[in-house]
Amino acid sequence: MSDRPASHLDREIREQPQALARLLERTAGDAAELAASLRGVDLQYALLAARGSSDNAARYAQYLFGVQLGLPVALAAPSLETMYDAPAIPRGAQALVIGVSQSGRSPDIVGVLASAREQGAPTVAITNDPRSPLAQEADAILSLGVGEELSVAATKTYTASLLALAMLVAELTGDAAARDALKAVPDQVQAAIDAAFASVGALERHAAARHVISVGRGFNYSTAFEIALKVRELTATVAEGFSPADLMHGPIAAVAPGTPAVVVAPSGRVAPTVLETADTLRERGIEPILIADRDDAHLRLPDGVPEWLSPIVAVVPGQVLALRFAETGDHPVDAPPGLTKVTETL
Amino acid sequence: MSDRPASHLDREIREQPQALARLLERTAGDAAELAASLRGVDLQYALLAARGSSDNAARYAQYLFGVQLGLPVALAAPSLETMYDAPAIPRGAQALVIGVSQSGRSPDIVGVLASAREQGAPTVAITNDPRSPLAQEADAILSLGVGEELSVAATKTYTASLLALAMLVAELTGDAAARDALKAVPDQVQAAIDAAFASVGALERHAAARHVISVGRGFNYSTAFEIALKVRELTATVAEGFSPADLMHGPIAAVAPGTPAVVVAPSGRVAPTVLETADTLRERGIEPILIADRDDAHLRLPDGVPEWLSPIVAVVPGQVLALRFAETGDHPVDAPPGLTKVTETL
Repeated sequence: MSDRPASHLDREIREQPQALARLLERTAGDAAELAASLRGVDLQYALLAARGSSDNAARYAQYLFGVQLGLPVALAAPSLETMYDAPAIPRGAQALVIGVSQSGRSPDIVGVLASAREQGAPTVAITNDPRSPLAQEADAILSLGVGEELSVAATKTYTASLLALAMLVAELTGDAAARDALKAVPDQVQAAIDAAFASVGALERHAAARHVISVGRGFNYSTAFEIALKVRELTATVAEGFSPADLMHGPIAAVAPGTPAVVVAPSGRVAPTVLETADTLRERGIEPILIADRDDAHLRLPDGVPEWLSPIVAVVPGQVLALRFAETGDHPVDAPPGLTKVTETL
Repeated sequence: MSDRPASHLDREIREQPQALARLLERTAGDAAELAASLRGVDLQYALLAARGSSDNAARYAQYLFGVQLGLPVALAAPSLETMYDAPAIPRGAQALVIGVSQSGRSPDIVGVLASAREQGAPTVAITNDPRSPLAQEADAILSLGVGEELSVAATKTYTASLLALAMLVAELTGDAAARDALKAVPDQVQAAIDAAFASVGALERHAAARHVISVGRGFNYSTAFEIALKVRELTATVAEGFSPADLMHGPIAAVAPGTPAVVVAPSGRVAPTVLETADTLRERGIEPILIADRDDAHLRLPDGVPEWLSPIVAVVPGQVLALRFAETGDHPVDAPPGLTKVTETL
């Protein structure tokens, strides 16, 4: 492995602390301005339009907006607007409409923003390309500014999208402690990267698994899905994300002993129930790979990350694990066969 | 197979036409009354709370409410209320809050309705038990009245939940043609049942597959997920639902030649793109099992079902297919190991 030239993916995973620090610096003003412009709006909900990894960012937003703002999040159904000519929201709805797309070029995401804008709702683009069609349809842009992502599998644009959402929410709550907590994230991500690369070697034996599951709950339901997506994209293994309840209510029957199960359990309200799930899996002969800020974790997270920000940190060991699985199995990590960077499907 | 006593599941699949006809008759008044009570409310969105099969009913609602009413649907994130004490919606939100649960006893679904009611929103319970805790938290009840469902895998309660949602939407639009279209559904379901039992034998060879996928789009995105869930519940096979775009954007890499792919493509706006997907799958050596109102379908749907009602009819051959897979593999069809009828998880 050591004489392999570093892949784009490897580099982009390691770039995340700097990329996130830059985002905090450069986009803080835009997030504050956007929050100020929304102060007069009596928001009833948010509508998020996203696809692929960005769809997992939207899953994070469900808990972020739900817990921090008391706002439900509707996920825009992709073909509603493109195939059925349905408006994204009713005219005059008090909704904040957010499109998340690293490229800003997914036509259906752009379509949702265009439709929402026509209906009079405030629209936001979270994108890595501030000149993209998505950005052009938005009233406000939160530009990720993480530099071009050359690997097909999204890593730094994913964590940056999460951080951009968290920055917006911190501004909307106006909570100074929340704003301070954001500043610690780049160093926490660095710690997670260091720990993951140091210990992932012991997990290589799982690289040949035919089926991988990933479990998380609450804020980290998104993380479970994103880690499953990375493993799937990079190794062409059937990898699936679940909440503990959903897994236990049926799919568990199709999980064979010996299957690796990534269990995402950073400290927080839901951690005890997720750790219980790890025990149940172990009793069934399934092999938990624990991502947690605990000494018995296989992939160790730094201490002191608040639960609402933990998905930005907890996904990182999963990225490293998927990378190592791909390297071990000799999969082309930067351009997995059959994948394209932009989902162009209408 | 012929000397096996009929399972509850077999009987409940076949009961659906009568159960749906009864629902249309008995609950039409309640649906009309509920719609009338909502006429003064300037609805901005709907919030649906559901789990398991009911979660797929909520997926149907995303398109049903989106296309017919122009209303986005937010799916209540299960642990938001139970784990994070977050309110389901902001105070005074113009939202219609619907809990879908056959038993009416899933604590987190009940919690969402209780929270929404406290916030002042109109609440509706769609349930098979009008005396359940869910029904008690609701301002209005659409009672399924399909009789006790003895099989653990939901069939008649699923199609009835879809029909109840469709009845409500038909009343909200006040469209007489829509109301008439509902009346044809029981006979259409009967035709689908007859055709499926007549032709499912030819598909038995797929019963031993290790991986099954199911593809649908728009209104029938829900159907793809529900068929995958049935196969999974009944045969403990890894079965997954996808939209064509999501499948093609990555997961397809993990689908081996020879894998059966249920393709749900009843006539409608999205049918051409779904049929295209079937062709692509065939070129890759994956074996489409086509559910459509076309002569080349493996499981034939009746002609003339409007797209917005097609999920109620198109899921039925999938139920029959999952039943036959389970019978062929000698799985206990009425009580698959590890499954419980009520998701009690908080």
